Amino acid sequence: MDNKLTTIRADFPILNQDVNGEPLVYLDNAATAQKPLEVTEALIHFYETDNANVHRGVHTLAERATEQYEIARGKLQKFINAAEPAEVVFTKGTTDSLNLIASTYGQQVIHEGDEIVISIMEHHSNLIPWQQLANQKHATLKYIGLTEDGELDMADAEAKITDKTKIVSVAHASNVMGTINPIKELTEIAHRHGATMVCDGAQAVPHTAVDVQDLDVDFYAFSGHKMMGPTGIGVLYGKRAFLEATNPYQYGGEMINFVHKFDSTWNEIPWKFEAGTQNIAGAIGLGAAADYLSQIGMDNVASHEQELVDYLLPKLEADEDVEVYGPANPDKHTGVIAFNIKGLHPHDVATALDMEGIAVRAGHHCAQPLMDELGLVATARASFYLYNTKQDADKLLAAIAETKEFFSNGIVEAK
Amino acid sequence: MDNKLTTIRADFPILNQDVNGEPLVYLDNAATAQKPLEVTEALIHFYETDNANVHRGVHTLAERATEQYEIARGKLQKFINAAEPAEVVFTKGTTDSLNLIASTYGQQVIHEGDEIVISIMEHHSNLIPWQQLANQKHATLKYIGLTEDGELDMADAEAKITDKTKIVSVAHASNVMGTINPIKELTEIAHRHGATMVCDGAQAVPHTAVDVQDLDVDFYAFSGHKMMGPTGIGVLYGKRAFLEATNPYQYGGEMINFVHKFDSTWNEIPWKFEAGTQNIAGAIGLGAAADYLSQIGMDNVASHEQELVDYLLPKLEADEDVEVYGPANPDKHTGVIAFNIKGLHPHDVATALDMEGIAVRAGHHCAQPLMDELGLVATARASFYLYNTKQDADKLLAAIAETKEFFSNGIVEAK
Repeated sequence: MDNKLTTIRADFPILNQDVNGEPLVYLDNAATAQKPLEVTEALIHFYETDNANVHRGVHTLAERATEQYEIARGKLQKFINAAEPAEVVFTKGTTDSLNLIASTYGQQVIHEGDEIVISIMEHHSNLIPWQQLANQKHATLKYIGLTEDGELDMADAEAKITDKTKIVSVAHASNVMGTINPIKELTEIAHRHGATMVCDGAQAVPHTAVDVQDLDVDFYAFSGHKMMGPTGIGVLYGKRAFLEATNPYQYGGEMINFVHKFDSTWNEIPWKFEAGTQNIAGAIGLGAAADYLSQIGMDNVASHEQELVDYLLPKLEADEDVEVYGPANPDKHTGVIAFNIKGLHPHDVATALDMEGIAVRAGHHCAQPLMDELGLVATARASFYLYNTKQDADKLLAAIAETKEFFSNGIVEAK
Repeated sequence: MDNKLTTIRADFPILNQDVNGEPLVYLDNAATAQKPLEVTEALIHFYETDNANVHRGVHTLAERATEQYEIARGKLQKFINAAEPAEVVFTKGTTDSLNLIASTYGQQVIHEGDEIVISIMEHHSNLIPWQQLANQKHATLKYIGLTEDGELDMADAEAKITDKTKIVSVAHASNVMGTINPIKELTEIAHRHGATMVCDGAQAVPHTAVDVQDLDVDFYAFSGHKMMGPTGIGVLYGKRAFLEATNPYQYGGEMINFVHKFDSTWNEIPWKFEAGTQNIAGAIGLGAAADYLSQIGMDNVASHEQELVDYLLPKLEADEDVEVYGPANPDKHTGVIAFNIKGLHPHDVATALDMEGIAVRAGHHCAQPLMDELGLVATARASFYLYNTKQDADKLLAAIAETKEFFSNGIVEAK
């Protein structure tokens, strides 16, 4: 892979810049990924050649736009191995997808006394929709806990998921600790109890091969912008029977069949869920991102990130001044590593790293209940992607050393 | 304006192409507008220079992205003369904005026996959300009718809006007939009865200067893609007091203050309504579109379209084989003209025009109740924008003449 890296990095013009006088080392990929030229070129080509509204037009541009939009749907279908394109609904992103499910299917199936099971490592977008639904319906929200190593406690999952459980919704990978969760196994438990399985794939789809049919999940949500696609586009996958049983989320153009003054009927899936003009260019750009990643091969993406974690994680763990959260075993990890430097606030750490051109995130990472569980307020987080290198990891290690030095001395060395 | 047109058209590379061997004449602007280079360049510049997730990052790229995202909000605020940036919520588009209001504020204020008043010329996106809300709440949905000339019947509005009315929601301009509705006057009637005024501005904001403070509307929705911005981005304007009184629509990152396991508190407006990663590039692109239109001047945009309608409308109305719908007075019109050629299905008309390189739309235009009211199944629709010319109008007239000739002869003349 390393031989190809120069070529790959050339696809991402944004990486070729200095930040605070140092070459940019972008390690904030769990927040959003950079875009290869193939994606921006797909956007520009659409806007400068074919831009029109889709589905409702008979003129040439409208036909071209519609064709490309539906081809993009097919690309996403193949990317996650959905059974058919109709099972791929375009949304604004993971948050939109999960809110859609909670507000429609969740509203339909959750009644007083029912139980919803999520995990304590959920991102707010896979937590608050279920929390608010449970509160509204007088249902019970249960949290699957963690093992000491920051993995999902599967014994606890077996205990929490019961015949009262109507919905289980768990992240495929933690956006904080990088933990990869055994979704197939969880789905099997959920189904054994007659519960519906929802999965937040925001941190998994960009980084590893995902096969929704193999996982057997009923719904699966992910974002485009984290997998090198444009902002404002994402996917809700649902099995046909589940999507057909789900009420529309938004009302407007395209999602209807007949509209009378006092009642209406709905279109087929997936269009039933795509009211109004969608992010057409965004969908086409996301299709280009799926092509880009497919050409590289998701197994190659995963193994490249694995190599970086294999390299970095033990070094961080060996540093007595650094606290690392999440699985110590690199095999249980995506390229996301949360850490703190003892005695320093993670915001100060992120600011100090930024002075060295290194972009990491600091905060609660939209996972406040997880922070509470870990007894933390915040962490720094470095997250890797395909275009990152061992040199990036080395620079991070050097900058962490410098940061410790700086804060212990209170002075900056002249360069 | 005509002197500037060559320059203006050069900003839109898509217009410089042949369709079916003829120069493209794009008259489908009510469906979506073309994008000037300034907008696509803003997108590319963001993705190739500053792309990062906003608000939650302390590193340089995240700060730059956040600054540009919030600057874009300020541009939109000025574009519609909102009192402050916090009154501008970024959404996916008009449909998303209107569903947001119906699903939150509408759910909160509508109770059994209440009345919601809309008009018979509403687009489905400003009709079905209210229809479904009324059905769910056992409230009454009332329709303001039309005058014979396709204008809103203001006497009927006075009769339909009563002290039982809780919400009035009407389009600023019809997407079918081009009718411009007297929103300020309607708002005054709504407020006199204590009702909340919502306005669907999708067909107005791109084409005429809109001042939400002068209109005094409580909520105002519009789309980016119809005003030369990217797809997948739009705005919900709301007066501060109204937005503050409105519950969140979606739950996730950024829209929260504190998240505990079993309850949460919400962020300030506008972020309370912006859960998850937004269409950051889309917002920045929309800001560039607002700049572009502002530099030209919305009064110039409106008067240019007015000139085209002044020129075209009487010629269409003089043609005995053509039926035109909507106000006969060009002053009551945006650049949207719905018409049929007698005896021909509008889809056949649109297909025939497309053979001449002319892009018009045909169908019910997501306004089935209006079609029923007019006794129609569908119409053709030509819709103009800034980059259209009198030559475009002449080509449309010539192609309509050819279409009539073709269908009456059943043969195509060789060129």
